[in-house]
Amino acid sequence: MPTLRIEMWSGRTMDQKRRLVRLVTDAVVEALGVPAQDVQIKIFEGEKENAARGGVLRSDEAQGS
Amino acid sequence: MPTLRIEMWSGRTMDQKRRLVRLVTDAVVEALGVPAQDVQIKIFEGEKENAARGGVLRSDEAQGS
Amino acid sequence: MPTLRIEMWSGRTMDQKRRLVRLVTDAVVEALGVPAQDVQIKIFEGEKENAARGGVLRSDEAQGS
Amino acid sequence: MPTLRIEMWSGRTMDQKRRLVRLVTDAVVEALGVPAQDVQIKIFEGEKENAARGGVLRSDEAQGS
Amino acid sequence: MPTLRIEMWSGRTMDQKRRLVRLVTDAVVEALGVPAQDVQIKIFEGEKENAARGGVLRSDEAQGS
Amino acid sequence: MPTLRIEMWSGRTMDQKRRLVRLVTDAVVEALGVPAQDVQIKIFEGEKENAARGGVLRSDEAQGS
Repeated sequence: MPTLRIEMWSGRTMDQKRRLVRLVTDAVVEALGVPAQDVQIKIFEGEKENAARGGVLRSDEAQGS
Repeated sequence: MPTLRIEMWSGRTMDQKRRLVRLVTDAVVEALGVPAQDVQIKIFEGEKENAARGGVLRSDEAQGS
Repeated sequence: MPTLRIEMWSGRTMDQKRRLVRLVTDAVVEALGVPAQDVQIKIFEGEKENAARGGVLRSDEAQGS
Repeated sequence: MPTLRIEMWSGRTMDQKRRLVRLVTDAVVEALGVPAQDVQIKIFEGEKENAARGGVLRSDEAQGS
Repeated sequence: MPTLRIEMWSGRTMDQKRRLVRLVTDAVVEALGVPAQDVQIKIFEGEKENAARGGVLRSDEAQGS
Repeated sequence: MPTLRIEMWSGRTMDQKRRLVRLVTDAVVEALGVPAQDVQIKIFEGEKENAARGGVLRSDEAQGS
């Protein structure tokens, strides 16, 4: 602990993931004062056809964020 | 918020997913009185070899629900 | 399965929860053609001080959804 | 209930999964005194490139556990 | 890893939790051949008014499991 | 999306939470190039009596991280 679960759209490169876990870990260390080694992160990649907002699949939206 | 996470067996069609998020969103709106746009849904598809009941994998059951 | 996890702000009444699980279950049954008895729901109630959007706690927003 | 969600590295055989759900279910039954049929388990398999400790991806570690 | 998330009804004693994490950890070690120290467990306690089956809150059932 | 779920021990102040969601959101924006407004965070606070490592409750450890 702390443990972070990051859900994001699939398609990021390994370098983006590397940078993500590095920067987010630094942020948690700075905010909470815990050792970096205690910060665990898991990344979960999702598809836009498996997410919805307002009753509409994100893959069916004209343009999604 | 509200956010719904729906776990179901894999293998549904896009049309079933479309219908699912539409009907479930309508149900949440009617029950809680929130705007549809606030209702977020994520779908997670699982395999029967990764689920168990009574200590037995669902893929090993004679017939599962 | 299907299993639904509903995350919403705390403070709903028992009657709202009753109505929510009834309507959402009906929606899943209609969309996926599964028996109602197979639909499991878990409700998780959260506080606005434990959620953020755009780097700001929801409890600090002028008015949140 | 009880429901268990087991997150582990991908790559286990079906026989390991079979053994895992059997032994874990037995453990829960013995500890809590619930019927085995009430114990539900879901397995989630993850990749080391989607996990980090100390700001470093597990796939980048020299040797991980 | 492996990480286990155990969802169960609230009301268990500390001794039951102690026994639960001990027995479940032993089961995972035996099934997967990992060191006990790698097995992490988190317990989540829920109320029957926040769970439903077949569209009915578990707290409204005549007798629940 | 991205959505982050942060699990940490209970007992942090509102100011620590404020700082946490601000710094973590900034980190995600910098790493992934998404608008800050798309970054959602949920915080889940846990007790050491509901977590275990190596089959021992964290509340029973001599000194935990």
